[in-house]
Amino acid sequence: MLNQVFHALADPSRRGMVDRLSRGPASVSELAKPLDMSLAAVVQHLQVLEASGLVRTEKIGRVRVCHLEGTALREAETWLAQRRTGWERRLDRLDDYLRENP
Amino acid sequence: MLNQVFHALADPSRRGMVDRLSRGPASVSELAKPLDMSLAAVVQHLQVLEASGLVRTEKIGRVRVCHLEGTALREAETWLAQRRTGWERRLDRLDDYLRENP
Repeated sequence: MLNQVFHALADPSRRGMVDRLSRGPASVSELAKPLDMSLAAVVQHLQVLEASGLVRTEKIGRVRVCHLEGTALREAETWLAQRRTGWERRLDRLDDYLRENP
Repeated sequence: MLNQVFHALADPSRRGMVDRLSRGPASVSELAKPLDMSLAAVVQHLQVLEASGLVRTEKIGRVRVCHLEGTALREAETWLAQRRTGWERRLDRLDDYLRENP
């Protein structure tokens, strides 16, 4: 899961799509509008985002609507936050040690 | 920068190395120990991590010591957190709307 989420986020167009969807659902053509690429390329990026679990799409009538999935976003964020806090705790301990042993 | 950071994190071995380094610096051979791969493969993963800015290495005598760089980790975390909070705020507004317009 994390493999695919981080892979999906490694592309700036896909991050742009995630950013757009964080402000609300959008159709595929709305997602494509700010991007300088073919609709086929957009659909391919969308498939990578769907495979990662970051985006869910549903067909409403003739329009495919895309939604952001908070869970995948949160999982990646949590993984990073845990490593960062581990790293900061270690720096704090080092700081304490150097203060006590000048 | 974010392209390379997320690309680096898309691989489970590299995430394992980041996890190990979040608990303190390590030599290349210490990083390699829990991984079932050649030292050459470990060095290649390390190069991807260095290129992304997540890891910094320095040669101390004959040993190459690897350190985690908090900045890159934090930048990726911040990017995710901003999209998540945007998404949650939208859900909250939707909730309010549905409460006021039952």
